[in-house]
Amino acid sequence: MDNKVAEIFMFDLRVTYADCTLGNHVYYGRYLDFLEAARGEFHREIGFPLLSLQEKDTIFPVIQCSIKYLKPARYDDVLQIRLWLSKLSQVRLTFEYEILREEQVLLKAITDHVCTSVSDKPKRIPEQLAAKFSKYLQLSITPT
Amino acid sequence: MDNKVAEIFMFDLRVTYADCTLGNHVYYGRYLDFLEAARGEFHREIGFPLLSLQEKDTIFPVIQCSIKYLKPARYDDVLQIRLWLSKLSQVRLTFEYEILREEQVLLKAITDHVCTSVSDKPKRIPEQLAAKFSKYLQLSITPT
Amino acid sequence: MDNKVAEIFMFDLRVTYADCTLGNHVYYGRYLDFLEAARGEFHREIGFPLLSLQEKDTIFPVIQCSIKYLKPARYDDVLQIRLWLSKLSQVRLTFEYEILREEQVLLKAITDHVCTSVSDKPKRIPEQLAAKFSKYLQLSITPT
Amino acid sequence: MDNKVAEIFMFDLRVTYADCTLGNHVYYGRYLDFLEAARGEFHREIGFPLLSLQEKDTIFPVIQCSIKYLKPARYDDVLQIRLWLSKLSQVRLTFEYEILREEQVLLKAITDHVCTSVSDKPKRIPEQLAAKFSKYLQLSITPT
Repeated sequence: MDNKVAEIFMFDLRVTYADCTLGNHVYYGRYLDFLEAARGEFHREIGFPLLSLQEKDTIFPVIQCSIKYLKPARYDDVLQIRLWLSKLSQVRLTFEYEILREEQVLLKAITDHVCTSVSDKPKRIPEQLAAKFSKYLQLSITPT
Repeated sequence: MDNKVAEIFMFDLRVTYADCTLGNHVYYGRYLDFLEAARGEFHREIGFPLLSLQEKDTIFPVIQCSIKYLKPARYDDVLQIRLWLSKLSQVRLTFEYEILREEQVLLKAITDHVCTSVSDKPKRIPEQLAAKFSKYLQLSITPT
Repeated sequence: MDNKVAEIFMFDLRVTYADCTLGNHVYYGRYLDFLEAARGEFHREIGFPLLSLQEKDTIFPVIQCSIKYLKPARYDDVLQIRLWLSKLSQVRLTFEYEILREEQVLLKAITDHVCTSVSDKPKRIPEQLAAKFSKYLQLSITPT
Repeated sequence: MDNKVAEIFMFDLRVTYADCTLGNHVYYGRYLDFLEAARGEFHREIGFPLLSLQEKDTIFPVIQCSIKYLKPARYDDVLQIRLWLSKLSQVRLTFEYEILREEQVLLKAITDHVCTSVSDKPKRIPEQLAAKFSKYLQLSITPT
Protein backbone atom coordinates (compact mmCIF):
# COMPACT_ATOMS: atom_id res chain seq x y z
CA MET A 1 0.00 0.00 0.00
CA ASP A 2 3.09 2.35 0.00
CA ASN A 3 2.06 5.98 -0.01
CA LYS A 4 -0.76 5.87 -2.53
CA VAL A 5 -4.14 6.86 -1.25
CA ALA A 6 -6.80 4.21 -1.78
CA GLU A 7 -9.98 5.17 -3.53
CA ILE A 8 -13.36 5.33 -1.85
CA PHE A 9 -16.55 4.61 -3.73
CA MET A 10 -19.46 6.94 -2.94
CA PHE A 11 -23.13 6.33 -3.55
CA ASP A 12 -26.11 8.55 -2.67
CA LEU A 13 -29.50 7.31 -1.66
CA ARG A 14 -32.77 8.90 -0.54
CA VAL A 15 -34.60 7.44 2.50
CA THR A 16 -38.23 6.49 1.79
CA TYR A 17 -41.16 5.68 4.08
CA ALA A 18 -40.64 2.01 3.24
CA ASP A 19 -37.22 2.23 4.94
CA CYS A 20 -38.51 3.75 8.18
CA THR A 21 -40.23 2.45 11.27
CA LEU A 22 -41.85 3.99 14.36
CA GLY A 23 -40.15 7.00 15.86
CA ASN A 24 -39.12 8.33 12.45
CA HIS A 25 -35.94 6.45 11.83
CA VAL A 26 -34.65 3.91 9.39
CA TYR A 27 -35.32 0.32 10.51
CA TYR A 28 -32.07 -1.30 11.71
CA GLY A 29 -32.21 -4.08 9.13
CA ARG A 30 -32.88 -1.80 6.18
CA TYR A 31 -29.34 -0.46 6.28
CA LEU A 32 -28.24 -3.82 4.91
CA ASP A 33 -30.39 -3.11 1.85
CA PHE A 34 -28.54 0.19 1.47
CA LEU A 35 -25.15 -1.49 1.72
CA GLU A 36 -26.18 -4.05 -0.89
CA ALA A 37 -27.33 -1.27 -3.24
CA ALA A 38 -23.95 0.43 -2.76
CA ARG A 39 -22.05 -2.79 -3.48
CA GLY A 40 -24.11 -3.27 -6.64
CA GLU A 41 -23.20 0.21 -7.90
CA PHE A 42 -19.58 -0.21 -6.86
CA HIS A 43 -19.33 -3.38 -8.94
CA ARG A 44 -20.84 -1.56 -11.89
CA GLU A 45 -18.40 1.32 -11.39
CA ILE A 46 -15.36 -0.94 -11.56
CA GLY A 47 -16.67 -2.68 -14.66
CA PHE A 48 -17.73 -5.97 -13.07
CA PRO A 49 -21.48 -5.83 -12.44
CA LEU A 50 -22.63 -8.56 -10.05
CA LEU A 51 -25.09 -9.89 -12.62
CA SER A 52 -22.42 -10.47 -15.27
CA LEU A 53 -20.13 -12.03 -12.67
CA GLN A 54 -22.94 -14.38 -11.71
CA GLU A 55 -23.42 -15.30 -15.35
CA LYS A 56 -19.75 -16.30 -15.26
CA ASP A 57 -20.40 -18.44 -12.16
CA THR A 58 -18.87 -16.04 -9.62
CA ILE A 59 -20.79 -14.75 -6.63
CA PHE A 60 -19.84 -13.17 -3.29
CA PRO A 61 -22.10 -14.40 -0.51
CA VAL A 62 -21.92 -12.51 2.77
CA ILE A 63 -20.56 -14.70 5.54
CA GLN A 64 -20.47 -12.08 8.27
CA CYS A 65 -21.51 -8.50 8.88
CA SER A 66 -21.38 -6.02 11.68
CA ILE A 67 -22.98 -2.64 12.03
CA LYS A 68 -22.44 0.17 14.48
CA TYR A 69 -25.41 2.55 14.68
CA LEU A 70 -24.24 6.02 15.71
CA LYS A 71 -27.14 8.32 14.78
CA PRO A 72 -30.51 7.52 13.21
CA ALA A 73 -31.16 8.29 9.55
CA ARG A 74 -34.61 9.74 9.00
CA TYR A 75 -37.29 9.96 6.32
CA ASP A 76 -36.25 11.96 3.27
CA ASP A 77 -32.59 12.15 4.28
CA VAL A 78 -30.12 11.97 1.44
CA LEU A 79 -27.48 9.54 2.64
CA GLN A 80 -24.01 9.13 1.28
CA ILE A 81 -22.61 5.64 1.48
CA ARG A 82 -18.83 5.38 1.40
CA LEU A 83 -17.38 1.97 0.57
CA TRP A 84 -13.87 0.54 0.40
CA LEU A 85 -12.09 -2.75 1.00
CA SER A 86 -10.18 -3.51 4.17
CA LYS A 87 -9.15 -7.09 3.42
CA LEU A 88 -8.54 -8.95 0.20
CA SER A 89 -7.22 -12.48 -0.19
CA GLN A 90 -7.49 -15.01 -2.99
CA VAL A 91 -10.96 -16.14 -1.98
CA ARG A 92 -12.21 -13.62 0.57
CA LEU A 93 -12.76 -9.90 0.85
CA THR A 94 -14.06 -7.42 3.37
CA PHE A 95 -15.99 -4.27 2.54
CA GLU A 96 -16.14 -1.41 4.96
CA TYR A 97 -18.76 1.32 4.85
CA GLU A 98 -19.71 4.58 6.37
CA ILE A 99 -23.13 6.12 5.92
CA LEU A 100 -23.20 9.90 6.24
CA ARG A 101 -25.83 12.61 6.24
CA GLU A 102 -24.08 15.76 5.20
CA GLU A 103 -20.76 15.45 6.97
CA GLN A 104 -22.01 13.44 9.91
CA VAL A 105 -21.29 9.71 10.13
CA LEU A 106 -24.50 7.88 11.08
CA LEU A 107 -23.36 4.29 10.73
CA LYS A 108 -20.24 2.17 10.23
CA ALA A 109 -20.37 -1.34 8.87
CA ILE A 110 -18.33 -4.26 7.65
CA THR A 111 -19.36 -7.14 5.42
CA ASP A 112 -17.17 -10.21 4.86
CA HIS A 113 -17.60 -12.14 1.63
CA VAL A 114 -16.28 -15.31 0.16
CA CYS A 115 -15.89 -15.83 -3.57
CA THR A 116 -17.78 -18.91 -4.74
CA SER A 117 -19.37 -20.52 -7.75
CA VAL A 118 -23.15 -20.29 -8.00
CA SER A 119 -23.24 -23.79 -6.50
CA ASP A 120 -21.36 -22.47 -3.43
CA LYS A 121 -17.91 -23.90 -4.12
CA PRO A 122 -15.14 -21.51 -3.01
CA LYS A 123 -13.10 -20.20 -5.93
CA ARG A 124 -10.39 -17.62 -6.55
CA ILE A 125 -11.43 -14.06 -7.20
CA PRO A 126 -10.92 -13.46 -10.94
CA GLU A 127 -7.56 -11.78 -11.46
CA GLN A 128 -8.74 -8.65 -13.27
CA LEU A 129 -11.44 -8.10 -10.68
CA ALA A 130 -8.93 -8.52 -7.86
CA ALA A 131 -6.81 -5.83 -9.51
CA LYS A 132 -9.78 -3.46 -9.47
CA PHE A 133 -10.59 -4.33 -5.86
CA SER A 134 -7.03 -3.58 -4.80
CA LYS A 135 -7.42 0.08 -5.78
CA TYR A 136 -10.03 0.44 -3.04
CA LEU A 137 -8.06 -1.47 -0.43
CA GLN A 138 -6.97 0.43 2.65
CA LEU A 139 -6.32 0.02 6.32
CA SER A 140 -9.31 -1.13 8.28
CA ILE A 141 -11.31 1.44 10.21
CA THR A 142 -13.06 -1.29 12.10
CA PRO A 143 -16.51 -0.19 13.27
CA THR A 144 -16.46 -1.89 16.63
CA MET B 1 -72.63 -23.94 -4.09
CA ASP B 2 -76.28 -24.82 -3.20
CA ASN B 3 -76.93 -24.11 0.45
CA LYS B 4 -73.61 -25.20 1.91
CA VAL B 5 -71.62 -22.53 3.62
CA ALA B 6 -68.11 -22.12 2.19
CA GLU B 7 -65.18 -22.38 4.56
CA ILE B 8 -62.95 -19.47 5.49
CA PHE B 9 -59.30 -19.97 6.35
CA MET B 10 -58.03 -17.93 9.29
CA PHE B 11 -54.46 -17.05 10.13
CA ASP B 12 -53.11 -14.94 12.98
CA LEU B 13 -50.05 -12.74 12.80
CA ARG B 14 -48.28 -10.30 15.12
CA VAL B 15 -47.19 -6.89 13.74
CA THR B 16 -43.48 -6.16 14.27
CA TYR B 17 -41.44 -2.95 14.02
CA ALA B 18 -40.15 -4.16 10.66
CA ASP B 19 -43.72 -3.96 9.32
CA CYS B 20 -44.33 -0.39 10.47
CA THR B 21 -43.43 3.03 9.19
CA LEU B 22 -43.70 6.60 10.49
CA GLY B 23 -46.86 7.53 12.32
CA ASN B 24 -47.11 4.08 13.93
CA HIS B 25 -48.87 2.13 11.26
CA VAL B 26 -48.10 -0.80 9.03
CA TYR B 27 -46.50 0.25 5.73
CA TYR B 28 -49.02 -0.07 2.89
CA GLY B 29 -46.91 -2.56 0.93
CA ARG B 30 -46.23 -4.84 3.90
CA TYR B 31 -49.82 -6.07 3.91
CA LEU B 32 -48.95 -8.00 0.75
CA ASP B 33 -46.35 -9.88 2.81
CA PHE B 34 -49.11 -10.73 5.29
CA LEU B 35 -51.42 -11.99 2.53
CA GLU B 36 -48.62 -14.14 1.11
CA ALA B 37 -47.94 -15.63 4.55
CA ALA B 38 -51.67 -16.43 4.85
CA ARG B 39 -51.76 -18.07 1.40
CA GLY B 40 -48.74 -20.18 2.37
CA GLU B 41 -50.46 -21.43 5.51
CA PHE B 42 -53.73 -21.96 3.65
CA HIS B 43 -51.97 -24.19 1.13
CA ARG B 44 -50.42 -26.16 3.95
CA GLU B 45 -53.82 -26.49 5.65
CA ILE B 46 -55.44 -28.00 2.56
CA GLY B 47 -52.56 -30.43 2.12
CA PHE B 48 -50.89 -28.79 -0.90
CA PRO B 49 -47.99 -26.70 0.39
CA LEU B 50 -46.73 -24.25 -2.24
CA LEU B 51 -43.23 -25.72 -2.04
CA SER B 52 -44.37 -29.24 -2.90
CA LEU B 53 -46.59 -27.89 -5.70
CA GLN B 54 -43.58 -26.05 -7.09
CA GLU B 55 -41.56 -29.26 -6.96
CA LYS B 56 -44.34 -30.73 -9.15
CA ASP B 57 -43.98 -27.78 -11.54
CA THR B 58 -47.10 -25.89 -10.44
CA ILE B 59 -47.00 -22.29 -9.27
CA PHE B 60 -49.57 -19.51 -8.87
CA PRO B 61 -48.10 -16.14 -9.83
CA VAL B 62 -50.13 -13.07 -8.87
CA ILE B 63 -51.37 -11.23 -11.95
CA GLN B 64 -53.39 -8.59 -10.19
CA CYS B 65 -54.15 -7.36 -6.70
CA SER B 66 -56.21 -4.68 -5.08
CA ILE B 67 -56.32 -3.49 -1.51
CA LYS B 68 -58.74 -1.28 0.33
CA TYR B 69 -57.24 0.25 3.47
CA LEU B 70 -59.96 0.96 6.03
CA LYS B 71 -58.09 1.42 9.33
CA PRO B 72 -54.37 1.27 10.08
CA ALA B 73 -52.87 -1.75 11.80
CA ARG B 74 -50.31 -0.80 14.44
CA TYR B 75 -47.20 -2.16 16.11
CA ASP B 76 -47.85 -5.23 18.27
CA ASP B 77 -51.39 -5.75 16.97
CA VAL B 78 -52.46 -9.34 16.58
CA LEU B 79 -54.15 -9.46 13.20
CA GLN B 80 -56.47 -12.12 11.95
CA ILE B 81 -56.34 -12.73 8.22
CA ARG B 82 -59.43 -14.34 6.71
CA LEU B 83 -59.02 -15.90 3.28
CA TRP B 84 -61.38 -17.57 0.81
CA LEU B 85 -61.78 -17.94 -2.94
CA SER B 86 -64.20 -15.87 -4.98
CA LYS B 87 -63.37 -17.23 -8.44
CA LEU B 88 -62.06 -20.54 -9.65
CA SER B 89 -61.64 -21.66 -13.23
CA GLN B 90 -59.44 -24.29 -14.85
CA VAL B 91 -56.38 -22.06 -14.91
CA ARG B 92 -57.19 -19.05 -12.73
CA LEU B 93 -58.30 -18.32 -9.21
CA THR B 94 -59.05 -15.31 -7.04
CA PHE B 95 -58.39 -15.08 -3.34
CA GLU B 96 -60.21 -12.59 -1.19
CA TYR B 97 -59.03 -11.47 2.22
CA GLU B 98 -60.06 -9.48 5.20
CA ILE B 99 -57.60 -8.43 7.86
CA LEU B 100 -59.15 -7.84 11.27
CA ARG B 101 -58.01 -6.61 14.65
CA GLU B 102 -60.41 -8.07 17.17
CA GLU B 103 -63.72 -7.80 15.36
CA GLN B 104 -62.83 -4.72 13.30
CA VAL B 105 -62.04 -5.07 9.61
CA LEU B 106 -58.90 -3.05 8.84
CA LEU B 107 -58.31 -4.07 5.24
CA LYS B 108 -59.95 -5.90 2.35
CA ALA B 109 -57.99 -7.34 -0.53
CA ILE B 110 -58.12 -9.47 -3.64
CA THR B 111 -55.34 -11.30 -5.44
CA ASP B 112 -55.79 -12.90 -8.86
CA HIS B 113 -53.56 -15.81 -9.76
CA VAL B 114 -52.92 -17.92 -12.79
CA CYS B 115 -51.77 -21.53 -12.58
CA THR B 116 -48.54 -22.05 -14.50
CA SER B 117 -45.54 -24.28 -14.78
CA VAL B 118 -42.32 -23.00 -13.22
CA SER B 119 -41.37 -21.84 -16.71
CA ASP B 120 -44.53 -19.69 -16.82
CA LYS B 121 -46.67 -21.79 -19.15
CA PRO B 122 -50.36 -21.72 -18.15
CA LYS B 123 -51.61 -25.10 -17.02
CA ARG B 124 -54.74 -26.57 -15.46
CA ILE B 125 -55.04 -26.50 -11.71
CA PRO B 126 -54.44 -30.09 -10.52
CA GLU B 127 -57.79 -31.78 -10.03
CA GLN B 128 -57.42 -32.73 -6.37
CA LEU B 129 -56.21 -29.26 -5.51
CA ALA B 130 -59.17 -27.69 -7.36
CA ALA B 131 -61.48 -29.87 -5.28
CA LYS B 132 -59.90 -28.49 -2.10
CA PHE B 133 -60.10 -24.92 -3.41
CA SER B 134 -63.79 -25.31 -4.17
CA LYS B 135 -64.58 -25.81 -0.48
CA TYR B 136 -63.42 -22.23 0.14
CA LEU B 137 -65.24 -20.75 -2.85
CA GLN B 138 -67.96 -18.26 -2.13
CA LEU B 139 -69.64 -15.20 -3.54
CA SER B 140 -67.28 -12.31 -3.97
CA ILE B 141 -67.24 -9.57 -1.38
CA THR B 142 -65.29 -7.31 -3.66
CA PRO B 143 -63.19 -4.83 -1.70
CA THR B 144 -63.63 -1.89 -4.02
CA MET C 1 -58.33 19.53 -20.07
CA ASP C 2 -58.98 21.12 -23.52
CA ASN C 3 -56.25 20.24 -25.97
CA LYS C 4 -53.25 20.60 -23.70
CA VAL C 5 -51.25 17.49 -23.08
CA ALA C 6 -50.90 16.58 -19.41
CA GLU C 7 -47.41 16.07 -18.04
CA ILE C 8 -46.07 12.74 -16.92
CA PHE C 9 -43.49 12.46 -14.16
CA MET C 10 -40.73 9.95 -14.76
CA PHE C 11 -38.44 8.36 -12.21
CA ASP C 12 -35.73 5.74 -12.70
CA LEU C 13 -34.83 3.05 -10.23
CA ARG C 14 -32.43 0.11 -10.13
CA VAL C 15 -33.68 -3.26 -8.85
CA THR C 16 -31.57 -4.71 -6.01
CA TYR C 17 -31.38 -8.20 -4.49
CA ALA C 18 -33.41 -6.89 -1.55
CA ASP C 19 -36.31 -6.30 -3.96
CA CYS C 20 -36.28 -9.80 -5.43
CA THR C 21 -37.54 -13.18 -4.37
CA LEU C 22 -37.22 -16.76 -5.63
CA GLY C 23 -37.33 -17.27 -9.35
CA ASN C 24 -35.45 -14.04 -10.01
CA HIS C 25 -38.24 -11.53 -9.98
CA VAL C 26 -39.25 -8.56 -7.89
CA TYR C 27 -41.49 -9.54 -4.96
CA TYR C 28 -45.09 -8.48 -5.65
CA GLY C 29 -45.30 -6.21 -2.60
CA ARG C 30 -42.03 -4.42 -3.28
CA TYR C 31 -43.53 -2.57 -6.22
CA LEU C 32 -45.47 -0.51 -3.70
CA ASP C 33 -42.11 0.65 -2.31
CA PHE C 34 -41.16 1.73 -5.84
CA LEU C 35 -44.41 3.65 -6.30
CA GLU C 36 -43.89 5.41 -2.96
CA ALA C 37 -40.35 6.38 -3.97
CA ALA C 38 -41.74 7.80 -7.22
CA ARG C 39 -44.45 9.78 -5.40
CA GLY C 40 -41.80 11.20 -3.08
CA GLU C 41 -39.69 12.40 -6.01
CA PHE C 42 -42.77 13.71 -7.82
CA HIS C 43 -43.70 15.82 -4.81
CA ARG C 44 -40.16 17.18 -4.67
CA GLU C 45 -40.27 17.93 -8.41
CA ILE C 46 -43.43 20.03 -8.11
CA GLY C 47 -42.00 21.94 -5.16
CA PHE C 48 -44.07 20.34 -2.40
CA PRO C 49 -41.95 17.64 -0.75
CA LEU C 50 -44.04 15.30 1.40
CA LEU C 51 -41.92 16.09 4.44
CA SER C 52 -42.58 19.83 4.28
CA LEU C 53 -46.28 19.17 3.63
CA GLN C 54 -46.36 16.99 6.73
CA GLU C 55 -44.71 19.77 8.73
CA LYS C 56 -47.67 21.92 7.60
CA ASP C 57 -50.08 19.21 8.81
CA THR C 58 -50.97 17.82 5.38
CA ILE C 59 -50.55 14.15 4.51
CA PHE C 60 -51.96 11.86 1.80
CA PRO C 61 -52.69 8.40 3.20
CA VAL C 62 -53.40 5.67 0.67
CA ILE C 63 -56.95 4.40 0.96
CA GLN C 64 -56.88 1.99 -1.96
CA CYS C 65 -54.48 0.57 -4.49
CA SER C 66 -54.56 -1.84 -7.34
CA ILE C 67 -51.77 -3.36 -9.34
CA LYS C 68 -51.75 -5.29 -12.58
CA TYR C 69 -48.61 -7.38 -13.02
CA LEU C 70 -47.86 -7.85 -16.73
CA LYS C 71 -44.22 -8.99 -16.82
CA PRO C 72 -41.75 -9.59 -14.01
CA ALA C 73 -38.99 -7.08 -13.28
CA ARG C 74 -35.69 -8.76 -12.53
CA TYR C 75 -32.50 -8.15 -10.57
CA ASP C 76 -30.43 -5.26 -11.88
CA ASP C 77 -33.14 -3.97 -14.21
CA VAL C 78 -33.35 -0.23 -14.55
CA LEU C 79 -37.03 0.56 -14.28
CA GLN C 80 -38.74 3.70 -15.36
CA ILE C 81 -41.76 4.66 -13.30
CA ARG C 82 -44.26 6.95 -15.03
CA LEU C 83 -46.71 8.75 -12.79
CA TRP C 84 -49.67 11.06 -13.40
CA LEU C 85 -53.03 11.90 -11.82
CA SER C 86 -56.30 10.49 -13.09
CA LYS C 87 -58.63 12.03 -10.51
CA LEU C 88 -58.44 15.17 -8.43
CA SER C 89 -61.12 16.57 -6.15
CA GLN C 90 -60.97 18.92 -3.20
CA VAL C 91 -59.95 16.19 -0.76
CA ARG C 92 -59.02 13.17 -2.85
CA LEU C 93 -56.67 12.29 -5.64
CA THR C 94 -55.71 9.26 -7.69
CA PHE C 95 -52.24 8.53 -9.01
CA GLU C 96 -51.72 6.20 -11.92
CA TYR C 97 -48.43 4.53 -12.73
CA GLU C 98 -46.73 2.47 -15.32
CA ILE C 99 -43.45 0.72 -14.67
CA LEU C 100 -41.38 0.07 -17.76
CA ARG C 101 -38.16 -1.69 -18.62
CA GLU C 102 -36.88 -0.13 -21.78
CA GLU C 103 -40.08 0.41 -23.74
CA GLN C 104 -41.97 -2.53 -22.28
CA VAL C 105 -44.70 -1.96 -19.69
CA LEU C 106 -44.23 -4.41 -16.81
CA LEU C 107 -46.84 -3.15 -14.40
CA LYS C 108 -49.77 -0.75 -14.15
CA ALA C 109 -51.04 0.60 -10.88
CA ILE C 110 -53.40 3.03 -9.21
CA THR C 111 -53.26 4.51 -5.73
CA ASP C 112 -56.13 6.51 -4.22
CA HIS C 113 -55.31 9.05 -1.55
CA VAL C 114 -57.23 11.31 0.75
CA CYS C 115 -55.84 14.61 1.98
CA THR C 116 -55.83 14.74 5.78
CA SER C 117 -54.22 16.44 8.74
CA VAL C 118 -51.56 14.44 10.59
CA SER C 119 -54.33 13.50 13.04
CA ASP C 120 -56.32 11.95 10.16
CA LYS C 121 -58.98 14.65 9.71
CA PRO C 122 -59.90 15.11 6.04
CA LYS C 123 -58.92 18.54 4.73
CA ARG C 124 -58.82 20.38 1.41
CA ILE C 125 -55.76 19.97 -0.73
CA PRO C 126 -53.80 23.26 -0.44
CA GLU C 127 -54.69 25.46 -3.41
CA GLN C 128 -51.20 25.94 -4.82
CA LEU C 129 -50.51 22.24 -4.58
CA ALA C 130 -53.80 21.43 -6.35
CA ALA C 131 -52.71 23.75 -9.16
CA LYS C 132 -49.49 21.79 -9.53
CA PHE C 133 -51.34 18.47 -9.41
CA SER C 134 -53.70 19.59 -12.16
CA LYS C 135 -50.82 19.84 -14.65
CA TYR C 136 -50.38 16.07 -14.33
CA LEU C 137 -54.09 15.26 -14.55
CA GLN C 138 -55.25 13.23 -17.50
CA LEU C 139 -57.78 10.65 -18.55
CA SER C 140 -57.55 7.44 -16.60
CA ILE C 141 -55.77 4.48 -18.15
CA THR C 142 -57.21 2.20 -15.54
CA PRO C 143 -55.03 -0.86 -14.98
CA THR C 144 -57.82 -3.34 -14.50
CA MET D 1 -24.53 -17.06 37.93
CA ASP D 2 -23.15 -19.74 40.34
CA ASN D 3 -24.08 -23.16 39.07
CA LYS D 4 -27.60 -22.43 37.84
CA VAL D 5 -28.24 -22.90 34.18
CA ALA D 6 -29.45 -19.76 32.45
CA GLU D 7 -32.68 -19.95 30.48
CA ILE D 8 -32.90 -19.67 26.73
CA PHE D 9 -35.93 -18.22 25.01
CA MET D 10 -37.07 -20.04 21.88
CA PHE D 11 -39.25 -18.73 19.11
CA ASP D 12 -40.35 -20.47 15.89
CA LEU D 13 -40.90 -18.75 12.60
CA ARG D 14 -41.80 -19.82 9.06
CA VAL D 15 -39.83 -18.37 6.13
CA THR D 16 -42.02 -16.71 3.46
CA TYR D 17 -41.32 -15.64 -0.12
CA ALA D 18 -41.11 -12.04 1.13
CA ASP D 19 -38.06 -13.05 3.18
CA CYS D 20 -36.19 -14.65 0.29
CA THR D 21 -34.12 -13.40 -2.60
CA LEU D 22 -32.55 -14.94 -5.70
CA GLY D 23 -30.97 -18.35 -5.33
CA ASN D 24 -33.64 -19.48 -2.86
CA HIS D 25 -32.27 -18.16 0.37
CA VAL D 26 -33.31 -15.63 2.97
CA TYR D 27 -32.01 -12.13 2.20
CA TYR D 28 -29.13 -11.25 4.54
CA GLY D 29 -30.90 -8.21 6.02
CA ARG D 30 -34.17 -10.03 6.69
CA TYR D 31 -32.62 -11.99 9.53
CA LEU D 32 -32.66 -8.76 11.52
CA ASP D 33 -36.45 -8.75 11.14
CA PHE D 34 -36.48 -12.28 12.57
CA LEU D 35 -34.31 -11.26 15.53
CA GLU D 36 -36.60 -8.31 16.24
CA ALA D 37 -39.66 -10.57 16.14
CA ALA D 38 -37.93 -12.90 18.61
CA ARG D 39 -37.04 -10.01 20.95
CA GLY D 40 -40.67 -8.85 20.85
CA GLU D 41 -41.92 -12.28 21.88
CA PHE D 42 -39.19 -12.63 24.50
CA HIS D 43 -40.29 -9.37 26.10
CA ARG D 44 -43.88 -10.56 26.11
CA GLU D 45 -42.79 -13.89 27.65
CA ILE D 46 -41.06 -12.19 30.59
CA GLY D 47 -44.06 -9.93 31.20
CA PHE D 48 -42.58 -6.69 29.84
CA PRO D 49 -43.88 -6.23 26.29
CA LEU D 50 -41.92 -3.58 24.39
CA LEU D 51 -45.08 -1.59 23.73
CA SER D 52 -45.94 -1.23 27.41
CA LEU D 53 -42.31 -0.38 28.23
CA GLN D 54 -42.45 2.33 25.58
CA GLU D 55 -45.64 3.69 27.12
CA LYS D 56 -43.60 3.98 30.34
CA ASP D 57 -40.87 5.86 28.43
CA THR D 58 -38.39 3.00 28.20
CA ILE D 59 -36.98 1.78 24.90
CA PHE D 60 -33.95 -0.30 23.85
CA PRO D 61 -32.44 1.05 20.64
CA VAL D 62 -29.88 -1.18 18.93
CA ILE D 63 -26.45 0.41 18.93
CA GLN D 64 -24.55 -2.44 17.34
CA CYS D 65 -25.17 -5.81 15.77
CA SER D 66 -23.15 -8.54 14.21
CA ILE D 67 -24.23 -11.60 12.31
CA LYS D 68 -22.38 -14.69 11.25
CA TYR D 69 -24.05 -16.50 8.36
CA LEU D 70 -23.25 -20.22 8.48
CA LYS D 71 -25.86 -21.84 6.23
CA PRO D 72 -28.68 -20.29 4.22
CA ALA D 73 -32.27 -20.55 5.41
CA ARG D 74 -34.69 -21.28 2.59
CA TYR D 75 -38.30 -20.74 1.62
CA ASP D 76 -40.78 -22.58 3.86
CA ASP D 77 -38.18 -23.52 6.45
CA VAL D 78 -39.38 -23.50 10.03
CA LEU D 79 -36.65 -21.71 11.94
CA GLN D 80 -36.07 -21.82 15.64
CA ILE D 81 -34.59 -18.67 17.10
CA ARG D 82 -32.78 -19.09 20.41
CA LEU D 83 -32.17 -15.95 22.43
CA TRP D 84 -30.36 -15.16 25.67
CA LEU D 85 -28.38 -12.30 27.22
CA SER D 86 -24.62 -12.25 27.35
CA LYS D 87 -24.14 -8.84 28.98
CA LEU D 88 -26.25 -6.80 31.32
CA SER D 89 -25.31 -3.55 33.00
CA GLN D 90 -27.38 -0.75 34.48
CA VAL D 91 -28.00 0.87 31.10
CA ARG D 92 -26.87 -1.61 28.48
CA LEU D 93 -27.57 -5.18 27.47
CA THR D 94 -26.48 -7.63 24.82
CA PHE D 95 -28.67 -10.28 23.27
CA GLU D 96 -27.20 -13.30 21.60
CA TYR D 97 -29.05 -15.48 19.13
CA GLU D 98 -28.79 -18.66 17.21
CA ILE D 99 -31.11 -19.49 14.36
CA LEU D 100 -31.55 -23.21 13.74
CA ARG D 101 -33.30 -25.40 11.23
CA GLU D 102 -33.93 -28.69 12.92
CA GLU D 103 -30.76 -29.16 14.91
CA GLN D 104 -28.47 -27.29 12.54
CA VAL D 105 -27.27 -23.79 13.44
CA LEU D 106 -27.68 -21.50 10.39
CA LEU D 107 -26.78 -18.17 11.92
CA LYS D 108 -25.32 -16.61 15.05
CA ALA D 109 -25.91 -13.01 16.01
CA ILE D 110 -25.44 -10.38 18.67
CA THR D 111 -27.34 -7.15 19.22
CA ASP D 112 -26.20 -4.49 21.69
CA HIS D 113 -28.83 -2.21 23.15
CA VAL D 114 -28.89 0.81 25.37
CA CYS D 115 -31.80 1.63 27.65
CA THR D 116 -33.16 5.12 26.95
CA SER D 117 -36.21 7.29 27.30
CA VAL D 118 -38.31 7.76 24.15
CA SER D 119 -36.43 11.04 23.69
CA ASP D 120 -33.13 9.09 23.61
CA LYS D 121 -31.78 9.93 27.07
CA PRO D 122 -29.93 6.98 28.62
CA LYS D 123 -31.68 5.64 31.69
CA ARG D 124 -31.35 2.69 34.05
CA ILE D 125 -33.06 -0.52 33.13
CA PRO D 126 -36.14 -0.80 35.40
CA GLU D 127 -35.24 -3.00 38.36
CA GLN D 128 -37.91 -5.66 37.92
CA LEU D 129 -37.11 -5.98 34.25
CA ALA D 130 -33.39 -6.32 35.01
CA ALA D 131 -34.27 -9.16 37.40
CA LYS D 132 -36.11 -10.94 34.58
CA PHE D 133 -33.24 -10.32 32.14
CA SER D 134 -30.75 -11.81 34.57
CA LYS D 135 -32.44 -15.20 34.35
CA TYR D 136 -31.42 -15.35 30.69
CA LEU D 137 -27.88 -14.13 31.25
CA GLN D 138 -25.09 -16.52 30.43
CA LEU D 139 -21.54 -16.62 29.21
CA SER D 140 -21.11 -15.17 25.77
CA ILE D 141 -20.91 -17.51 22.81
CA THR D 142 -19.64 -14.73 20.64
CA PRO D 143 -20.53 -15.31 16.97
CA THR D 144 -17.30 -14.06 15.50
